[in-house]
Amino acid sequence: MISVGIIGGTGYTGKYLLQFIKQHEMITNYTIYANNSSGSKLLNVFPELFGVIEDQLIHSVNELSYSHDLYFVSLPHGESLKYIPTLLDKGIKVIDLGGDFRLDNKELYNEWYGFEHTSAYLLSQKVYGLADVVKTKLVKTNFISNPGCYPTSIQLALIPFIKYFANNIVTISSVSYSGTSGAGKSAKTELLLSELDGNVKAYNVNKHRHQPEIEQELKKAGMKSPFAFTTHLLPISRGIYSTSTIHLDIAIDEIEIREKYSIEYEDSIFVRMRDVPPELKWVVNSNFCDINISAKGKTVVITSTIDNLIKGASGQAVQNMNKMFGWNETLGLLKHKVS
Amino acid sequence: MISVGIIGGTGYTGKYLLQFIKQHEMITNYTIYANNSSGSKLLNVFPELFGVIEDQLIHSVNELSYSHDLYFVSLPHGESLKYIPTLLDKGIKVIDLGGDFRLDNKELYNEWYGFEHTSAYLLSQKVYGLADVVKTKLVKTNFISNPGCYPTSIQLALIPFIKYFANNIVTISSVSYSGTSGAGKSAKTELLLSELDGNVKAYNVNKHRHQPEIEQELKKAGMKSPFAFTTHLLPISRGIYSTSTIHLDIAIDEIEIREKYSIEYEDSIFVRMRDVPPELKWVVNSNFCDINISAKGKTVVITSTIDNLIKGASGQAVQNMNKMFGWNETLGLLKHKVS
Amino acid sequence: MISVGIIGGTGYTGKYLLQFIKQHEMITNYTIYANNSSGSKLLNVFPELFGVIEDQLIHSVNELSYSHDLYFVSLPHGESLKYIPTLLDKGIKVIDLGGDFRLDNKELYNEWYGFEHTSAYLLSQKVYGLADVVKTKLVKTNFISNPGCYPTSIQLALIPFIKYFANNIVTISSVSYSGTSGAGKSAKTELLLSELDGNVKAYNVNKHRHQPEIEQELKKAGMKSPFAFTTHLLPISRGIYSTSTIHLDIAIDEIEIREKYSIEYEDSIFVRMRDVPPELKWVVNSNFCDINISAKGKTVVITSTIDNLIKGASGQAVQNMNKMFGWNETLGLLKHKVS
Amino acid sequence: MISVGIIGGTGYTGKYLLQFIKQHEMITNYTIYANNSSGSKLLNVFPELFGVIEDQLIHSVNELSYSHDLYFVSLPHGESLKYIPTLLDKGIKVIDLGGDFRLDNKELYNEWYGFEHTSAYLLSQKVYGLADVVKTKLVKTNFISNPGCYPTSIQLALIPFIKYFANNIVTISSVSYSGTSGAGKSAKTELLLSELDGNVKAYNVNKHRHQPEIEQELKKAGMKSPFAFTTHLLPISRGIYSTSTIHLDIAIDEIEIREKYSIEYEDSIFVRMRDVPPELKWVVNSNFCDINISAKGKTVVITSTIDNLIKGASGQAVQNMNKMFGWNETLGLLKHKVS
Repeated sequence: MISVGIIGGTGYTGKYLLQFIKQHEMITNYTIYANNSSGSKLLNVFPELFGVIEDQLIHSVNELSYSHDLYFVSLPHGESLKYIPTLLDKGIKVIDLGGDFRLDNKELYNEWYGFEHTSAYLLSQKVYGLADVVKTKLVKTNFISNPGCYPTSIQLALIPFIKYFANNIVTISSVSYSGTSGAGKSAKTELLLSELDGNVKAYNVNKHRHQPEIEQELKKAGMKSPFAFTTHLLPISRGIYSTSTIHLDIAIDEIEIREKYSIEYEDSIFVRMRDVPPELKWVVNSNFCDINISAKGKTVVITSTIDNLIKGASGQAVQNMNKMFGWNETLGLLKHKVS
Repeated sequence: MISVGIIGGTGYTGKYLLQFIKQHEMITNYTIYANNSSGSKLLNVFPELFGVIEDQLIHSVNELSYSHDLYFVSLPHGESLKYIPTLLDKGIKVIDLGGDFRLDNKELYNEWYGFEHTSAYLLSQKVYGLADVVKTKLVKTNFISNPGCYPTSIQLALIPFIKYFANNIVTISSVSYSGTSGAGKSAKTELLLSELDGNVKAYNVNKHRHQPEIEQELKKAGMKSPFAFTTHLLPISRGIYSTSTIHLDIAIDEIEIREKYSIEYEDSIFVRMRDVPPELKWVVNSNFCDINISAKGKTVVITSTIDNLIKGASGQAVQNMNKMFGWNETLGLLKHKVS
Repeated sequence: MISVGIIGGTGYTGKYLLQFIKQHEMITNYTIYANNSSGSKLLNVFPELFGVIEDQLIHSVNELSYSHDLYFVSLPHGESLKYIPTLLDKGIKVIDLGGDFRLDNKELYNEWYGFEHTSAYLLSQKVYGLADVVKTKLVKTNFISNPGCYPTSIQLALIPFIKYFANNIVTISSVSYSGTSGAGKSAKTELLLSELDGNVKAYNVNKHRHQPEIEQELKKAGMKSPFAFTTHLLPISRGIYSTSTIHLDIAIDEIEIREKYSIEYEDSIFVRMRDVPPELKWVVNSNFCDINISAKGKTVVITSTIDNLIKGASGQAVQNMNKMFGWNETLGLLKHKVS
Repeated sequence: MISVGIIGGTGYTGKYLLQFIKQHEMITNYTIYANNSSGSKLLNVFPELFGVIEDQLIHSVNELSYSHDLYFVSLPHGESLKYIPTLLDKGIKVIDLGGDFRLDNKELYNEWYGFEHTSAYLLSQKVYGLADVVKTKLVKTNFISNPGCYPTSIQLALIPFIKYFANNIVTISSVSYSGTSGAGKSAKTELLLSELDGNVKAYNVNKHRHQPEIEQELKKAGMKSPFAFTTHLLPISRGIYSTSTIHLDIAIDEIEIREKYSIEYEDSIFVRMRDVPPELKWVVNSNFCDINISAKGKTVVITSTIDNLIKGASGQAVQNMNKMFGWNETLGLLKHKVS
């Protein structure tokens, strides 16, 4: 049984993190620390949780205690850096839901995130927590960097393919569509319903921060080919749909590919291989990633879906916690209804 | 510990009923009987439940056994009639999610439902299961008629007011908006996304079947005034928003009204009194009903919200089961995430 | 042929006003004055109008010239007051799309709008431009106050009924649902798609500024009964759906009521009487108001729909201009596609 | 001045075709022929067009006259074949909005459409009417095959690139998302709002009929590289968003590419080159195609948007008619409001 601190977590991600933690049988208590909402009651921030979660005061991050066994950190880019080194120094376990430690190479932070990384020594100490792939690595590490939402959807879709067929890949082109909750809760005109109703748009084309993260991990898996990645906003709040088109130099049979995936994900309860392209709603409000493979001639199309706030953030973080402490990885994650 | 049969239940309501039953600690097993989907596997009907619910064969209603302790019946209007009398004769408990037994008066079935009621003797035996109001009546009855979705949202909003202030009410006008899942899963052009996207429409004006149901129950609560009820379709799938305007012959203070509601719903964990008009999403994917009261001069506006498939159907049915068996009314209903 | 100035008009309303004016055969040229966007090019504000409208510089309202024959004023509440008196003093025609002159009674501005009206002498000089009702009054006035969006939908629905049956009305309860574009383009968290997707909420209950406007005009039409009005946000951008429930002291035949409406709106091309409750999309992107009447016993339900940005703002303003100058009232308003 | 017949055209495409024709200054009259709706009045099928279009009887296709100068044919696949050969034999002009003549190769109809083409001799006589590209070819031909919706969005995006840089292209991967109106008006459970609300799904992966059409035309433009194409459904009714990822064997500067497009589309009023990825709503309810080019290293991402019912169907058909008769190509197409 452990005690948990949540730093940040009054945004969209936090809402689900709280609910997972609340219903988790191995967590005795939790405290929330935040910047903007500190001093407020939790149920003022999340009125929908009345009757689901006990109210409590939201503490200021300035009053951060070091009394918990584990801290989830869910802060804007560049903010996690301020707290995590101290926590780790004190021997406390940390799962970071932000991007401050996902990349291995310090230089990439200047290029893609626009800040100088002040704790670069930790980049190699963290375990990159793609929970359904790096399972064993997660046990007993003190520091997990939780993957980004897009990277989760694309890596789970591509890593087995790359593992078995990297030599035959000519190019990979991933196109992702995300609900707007991925952009957070801040008031921007471009995120108004009046602007986005019935609308779609590509954004950050050729410059999305998740691109180096994906490339880094796909290369570790063996990718040698060029990789492109384009992101779009959907006029809905939840979910990511990723479509990865792979051009090959030979034809590979669909059945053969599917067999490899079945083997790779045999023990992964949260990865569901599908016979048809998945519907996004099948995974919304869940920690599942659904994957379908379609091959014809030298073309392979792999579609994959996740809930960006759960599998792409708080759900995977809880799964990582479960692994970190050696618990059943589904604890706290399956007692819910699929939308 | 009981065993449960579900007759019908491969529609939208069934999806949630199944999940509640699956995670209910007092239910050992359940069997599904259906018409159209019989012979199929459950996960073919609900592919999103893969990994959440064990697969099983859907039995034909023609092979209905009488081996379960309780049957949930979720069939189209006029169909429940065929099975419920026999079940009750055999001493088996029944919760009917359809409309076949909600009305007390046989004649109203000819007028509003268009069929001759063949088991009218049961109309007076059923308990009308508005779970948060008729709490005590539900214990140990054998036969509960689960309220309609609109009636649930409006009765919970109005019954306390009528109880205390009926003599001062001049008129009541309720206007409800519902998500499309209330119309079921059958393929109709008018329910296509292409037709309803960005659209709204009133329907069944002055002729909705839920009107006599609401009037029947509000009169039992003491209503003497005229009551009108108009329903609309929202371009979303889930939830009901009801706005009831009450014209009074005197001014009544908002605080006084709120106090009465607080008293009435003191022990009702699933009714949440709100200081501001509720947002529909606060209750979606939950068994809650949120209610707000606004009074100014001789006008009172009461807004209330429910999830039509849960509080308005399967969630309330499970709550009724809990009451029927004397269990804690929240069993199976709170282990989930609010959307 | 006239020249037109647009003060404000870089918001949602302005987008349509511009297009109507652009395609209006009696307007030779137009100039746009604005606060925030001044100095920008028009096509930067409205990139969707590239190829539809010639680009032009947006002038600052501080450089307002008095060289145009007519000014449309589309400014936030309290802002129109600063410009309109001077324009009128110079003998220039004005159509105000804001609320600064809609009410007749100076005191109501303190109560409902929260400001002291500094040009109260103009409140009695303006013509309240409910275009399909006060047709003759609009010819040759210099100053039209364009009705609010909700008031347009409700007045067109109720005025004929009040005119003929006021003595039999016990109460009127109007419930309106609006798309979010009515709330304007400013960045507020509560208007984010992430917040409103799949959501609905009542707002400003018993305190919406359009309530005194509606009451003022309905009383002029002869209303003696209590009137209540409640507004809600829809999770779509465009359109208003109003449902008015009238309780009567006698039954009135639906056919009789419909006949009266047919007479009243015989010459009103923009009011379409419907045999069934209208669908909101039938009027979106048009200047139409659709109305349906359903009567049963002593209850009458009148549903009415408009596009809030067109019939509820810029379309009606252009219709008012047409009337003001003695032109065919449809000029510029029918050359378009219904969505 | 001409007279026009519309065969089919009571579906979503027809609604806009009718409005374009109605407001077209060179068309004196039009007659509608249909299967299912024959005998009905037009305004019963399109109640939203009341006051916009005069009512008329919908004739049966069995009573097809040959009295018009031009016929638009908008029928399900395999149906156009029944009427077009006779019309052409009689020297009447035809624009076919269906797929029956888009492919050049008879064999492909067996493979992709599942029928034996009975008038294959016409496949080489038709002009494939990608209006903004094959401009000159359209003048005075008698038979235009209107491109598919997806092919329009992708060809306009890729043809100039292929024309100038085909030799450097390694692979092309196009991913398109479409509103549901592209699937037509037939009642299917999978197209219900209840199913699609908040949902997204890929469909017909590696087997969409538009794939051979796109490949055929891109190869004519010079494409030598592999091409993949994947389609998805959006939870909205209107619009197509296409994202084409091109992997190159050398880096090409973005500015250079943009210059080529500017040249190619210099005279194409309906193609709008954009500096940023277009928003889908910018083209909804219009005949525009918006295109953006983003290049980084050896990767080029081209995003393009159209309204599937207008630029992807009836709008382009009218543009083709204008070309066919030597009129200004914008006739009838710009007198409208952008949504």
